[in-house]
Amino acid sequence: MTDVTLCECFARDGLQHEPDFVPTATKRELIERFAALGFTRIEATSYSNPKVVPQFADASELLETLPRRGGVHYKATCANPRAVERAVTDAIAGHGVNEISLLVSASEEHSQTNLRRSRAEQWDNVQAMAAAAGDRFRLVGSISVAFGCPFEGAVPPQTVVEDVERFAALGVRYVSLGDTTGMATPNSVAALCRLVRRAVPEVTPIGHFHDTRGTGLVNVLAALDAGVRFFDASFGGVGGHPAKLRYGGGFTGNVCTEDLVGLLESLGVRTGIDHSALLDTALACEAALGRELHGRVTRSGLNPLIERRDAADAAARAPAG
Amino acid sequence: MTDVTLCECFARDGLQHEPDFVPTATKRELIERFAALGFTRIEATSYSNPKVVPQFADASELLETLPRRGGVHYKATCANPRAVERAVTDAIAGHGVNEISLLVSASEEHSQTNLRRSRAEQWDNVQAMAAAAGDRFRLVGSISVAFGCPFEGAVPPQTVVEDVERFAALGVRYVSLGDTTGMATPNSVAALCRLVRRAVPEVTPIGHFHDTRGTGLVNVLAALDAGVRFFDASFGGVGGHPAKLRYGGGFTGNVCTEDLVGLLESLGVRTGIDHSALLDTALACEAALGRELHGRVTRSGLNPLIERRDAADAAARAPAG
Repeated sequence: MTDVTLCECFARDGLQHEPDFVPTATKRELIERFAALGFTRIEATSYSNPKVVPQFADASELLETLPRRGGVHYKATCANPRAVERAVTDAIAGHGVNEISLLVSASEEHSQTNLRRSRAEQWDNVQAMAAAAGDRFRLVGSISVAFGCPFEGAVPPQTVVEDVERFAALGVRYVSLGDTTGMATPNSVAALCRLVRRAVPEVTPIGHFHDTRGTGLVNVLAALDAGVRFFDASFGGVGGHPAKLRYGGGFTGNVCTEDLVGLLESLGVRTGIDHSALLDTALACEAALGRELHGRVTRSGLNPLIERRDAADAAARAPAG
Repeated sequence: MTDVTLCECFARDGLQHEPDFVPTATKRELIERFAALGFTRIEATSYSNPKVVPQFADASELLETLPRRGGVHYKATCANPRAVERAVTDAIAGHGVNEISLLVSASEEHSQTNLRRSRAEQWDNVQAMAAAAGDRFRLVGSISVAFGCPFEGAVPPQTVVEDVERFAALGVRYVSLGDTTGMATPNSVAALCRLVRRAVPEVTPIGHFHDTRGTGLVNVLAALDAGVRFFDASFGGVGGHPAKLRYGGGFTGNVCTEDLVGLLESLGVRTGIDHSALLDTALACEAALGRELHGRVTRSGLNPLIERRDAADAAARAPAG
């Protein structure tokens, strides 16, 4: 039993803007480590256009050789109906993912900039994608700039609620609320998460926060307090929004998995993640990218109070004598 | 009017473990910038033994040339009675600080390791220091490892309360609760801060959190929620505990001033700090140390929602016509 479900995003969101291609075998080994650590949701790859995002040119090849585990959802990102067709083809061939995500932006200008389509056009797209997916996959809706748009400023919460309702009408039962450029505050997070849970109770909200301004963990705690139990994070805090390319600089990483696990476990919130192998996995992710990443506990170690509790638990489980 | 009082610790706590001497003129210019930004508490220097901490060999020289401002407390750290004598000498000469801090550790083993004295011996020291200080300075008690000790584990909250009471009995009216090695959690912060405020209402608690495990900001918010209104922070998140030297590695910085100001202002908590010059000051601190520091908003900019609010406020203040 766990109290929260974390999705490890390193292999997709984390690698999305990495300039150097990470070998398929390395990606597969890391995803295997994530599953062994206890993650039950793992972003595996993206069915992107290989000419636009060469990092995921190996999507089908990776999935073909990736061992599966019962109870684990492997997710592929799908930006358009063509991507869903590729996901279906792989699924029919027996090596597809069991979860795909469908992306919209909560603001018109961000939709135009990021997806090169109006919101209305992207919703038509999403409808076609959901139809093409059928019931082969768990569908996850993903709403960008849900807590504020760098172009338009505040985003009306009612717009986000309506987007969640549109996803629900398409049969989507999980929707991530994305703080794409780090504009969320604990107050806006608590308010929007409560509103969504009340208005669309059949949908499970997922907190997807970026640490652009150092507020990733505070926003996770605000969402947790508002009843959210699913969160996205990435080892080393890599990935997130390509602010460097588009918005003139900025640190835009995801919430850092190892720091998030450390914080939650120090609060007694059970993540289901194996503490003893957490930091070695963080170091493996650093090795894959060839540089030191943003995890604090990777350098400092987990909170000693967690380690003392783990040791006491292990002693209690040991046979007497 | 402000809602919280922030102490800028860059020039003392921040520089404490920097290997290269920062020129006195640079320190003075930075402290001047902090005061101009709106900080009303500023750690200026430490009366350390120059052979042990050469960085503060210029303590008296710096203070002699530092312009003072009404309403601003400049603090010097004092580790022993000899340091207080130096503070008194400078004060009599007309260029002393108006605030000094007196340090104890909440655990016996940390006291022995960090201060090379037992807790009982250090309390004798503190008593002598308070007597030597007389009423020349605002006295600030400082309790290390208040939320957990890397050697002993959990620290009984009652021990911390008794330390605050001992400070109060010496006439100390401000006491900082230090999360020296990043073991605090939002739960332990809320519990201890509430306990201290209830047990010793005549003392104003100060939250001094380290970002060792990425939990600096979450712990500030937990303390704020528990009624704490004074916080320590350092530009670029530098300083904090010398874990690299003593505890086998680890990121140990203070809470990052620019990220803290950004978070609080985004919540409508007034810090009294000038937003428009905040990031330039962060860059000046980076220039002084010759490297990029840990501030996220230094790279990303303040939350656009704050900037839009500032612009709206400015427009409302502008004369009509």
